[in-house]
Amino acid sequence: MEPVRTIDWVDGAVEIIDQTALPGKLVTRRLASVDALVAAIQALAVRGAPALGVAGALGVALAVREHRGTEDRERAVRRIAGARPTAVNLATGVRRAAARLPEGPDAVLAEALRLRDEEIAASGAMAHLGADLITELCGPSPRLLTHCNTGGLASVTGGTALAVVTELHRRGRLGGVIASETRPLLQGVRLTAWELGRAGVAYRIAVDSAGPYLIARGEVDAVVVGADRICANGDVVNKIGTYAHALGAARAGVPFVVVAPESTLDHETPEGAAVAIEDRDATEVLHLAGVPIAPPGAAAVNPAFDVTPHDLVTAVVTEKRVLR
Amino acid sequence: MEPVRTIDWVDGAVEIIDQTALPGKLVTRRLASVDALVAAIQALAVRGAPALGVAGALGVALAVREHRGTEDRERAVRRIAGARPTAVNLATGVRRAAARLPEGPDAVLAEALRLRDEEIAASGAMAHLGADLITELCGPSPRLLTHCNTGGLASVTGGTALAVVTELHRRGRLGGVIASETRPLLQGVRLTAWELGRAGVAYRIAVDSAGPYLIARGEVDAVVVGADRICANGDVVNKIGTYAHALGAARAGVPFVVVAPESTLDHETPEGAAVAIEDRDATEVLHLAGVPIAPPGAAAVNPAFDVTPHDLVTAVVTEKRVLR
Repeated sequence: MEPVRTIDWVDGAVEIIDQTALPGKLVTRRLASVDALVAAIQALAVRGAPALGVAGALGVALAVREHRGTEDRERAVRRIAGARPTAVNLATGVRRAAARLPEGPDAVLAEALRLRDEEIAASGAMAHLGADLITELCGPSPRLLTHCNTGGLASVTGGTALAVVTELHRRGRLGGVIASETRPLLQGVRLTAWELGRAGVAYRIAVDSAGPYLIARGEVDAVVVGADRICANGDVVNKIGTYAHALGAARAGVPFVVVAPESTLDHETPEGAAVAIEDRDATEVLHLAGVPIAPPGAAAVNPAFDVTPHDLVTAVVTEKRVLR
Repeated sequence: MEPVRTIDWVDGAVEIIDQTALPGKLVTRRLASVDALVAAIQALAVRGAPALGVAGALGVALAVREHRGTEDRERAVRRIAGARPTAVNLATGVRRAAARLPEGPDAVLAEALRLRDEEIAASGAMAHLGADLITELCGPSPRLLTHCNTGGLASVTGGTALAVVTELHRRGRLGGVIASETRPLLQGVRLTAWELGRAGVAYRIAVDSAGPYLIARGEVDAVVVGADRICANGDVVNKIGTYAHALGAARAGVPFVVVAPESTLDHETPEGAAVAIEDRDATEVLHLAGVPIAPPGAAAVNPAFDVTPHDLVTAVVTEKRVLR
């Protein structure tokens, strides 16, 4: 099937695939204001580090059209950059487009579209470098485990870790893939499953907590994940549950490979402990598909990301290089 | 509130609290045949290692009333013992009651009720020994993390790991408790939350995959779990997700304490790798609260238990002793 483009600029506004509606419905939403974009980001209708970078840059293109006054514009730009705190791409995408504000709306949009095109090109390059690395580390028919969603939906098209999986499949070099469901918002079982199905890749879903055990009992040759931010010391900030998989991989001596574009490398932040980890609403944990699952009065703690210390990471693959 | 008794013998049949209906409804079900009991065990309407031991023993009391012929009886007894493979208590509870078959129905029932009473007494003793140990290891106000459900619902009344939590609360010595939700069947957010709420203990729910990160960021002073089988070498077989929490505790240097009655110690099985791990139906993973969450055609792998190697276990608390 035709690959999707999860975010783009169409006829003067941002268009996204609404990721909250998948896998049930493939809905395109048009976001014509900064308010609408910020709400979509916070609701995870658009998500994934590279996609958030493009959303941030395109958001500045919206802001410059919506607001004439400098102060209003700056306020709008700050709101976009702060819509979610953890993925570095959102803030850097905003910053990059905002740097062109003095040159006018067309220059801002051109910069945002350049970022979009760079992310598309980066996906292709990461897929190849990552597939080469996995084959080198694991041999001809590796069985992989991946977490959250890192396919075209998380990027613009293509993806990061999931692009490596589909590239190995295209080469006839994939032994199997387990996708963990990724509670609370189920990006694995909803989005990754949908993308793998469209790409014709056979997969199995597992609950998140099964990953380390499936690795221990010999069903996984490598873990391949994306990242929301990679710190200067190599600590990887990614979807909650990544760290548990890394612990399981390290204990079993199985490679743990992170695939992310250069735009996710954050040279300004020394280590994972310095990153603001988004704690999201308890409702996400206490409900499933809109249905309450806890007794009345239950509380929850809901960190959306975790930190995988660099010593647990076998390699980071970007569009340019493999960092070990 | 009055503690519940999750399983008992009432007027010639087994009565259980139907754990699949909680926390929405507190339903008592009467199981008057071996068929009904086996179905309830397989559907997890009754679950938890100590409760399964009592269910197995009471099942033999049902079988001896239902079947006159020796062969029919033996077939029924084998069906009960094999209803679920992983928790050692089910098979040993069956074996213990079945040893009294030559003495007639009353002796079988008396043996089953003796096991029930022993498990009730064991819960109380474990609660005290475990609370003493946690206080010794962590100081006066420990913040605990627990997994799955190990309260009265999993035993007869009282519980194993959760009885330690409530005992610390009763002593005014509990700093807080995080209950992981326990996908796929949500025993944590459904059952543990319900029991903690009834006991007046404030708690927070977390998704399973958040446990290791919450430990790493300093929100947990000890992990306290139950067990379905503890092998001769100390390997602990317990609900899927236990191993990931143990890896997180070990990495952070936080105690990982297992609370289980002597009846869960399996001296016959040398190590975790020798235990039959129950792989349950994919439907449990691909649905949430009865609602499908995966795209059509999705597959799943669903191990119901995992193995925590003994080197990750700080201590095992039984009703008699603390094994370190």
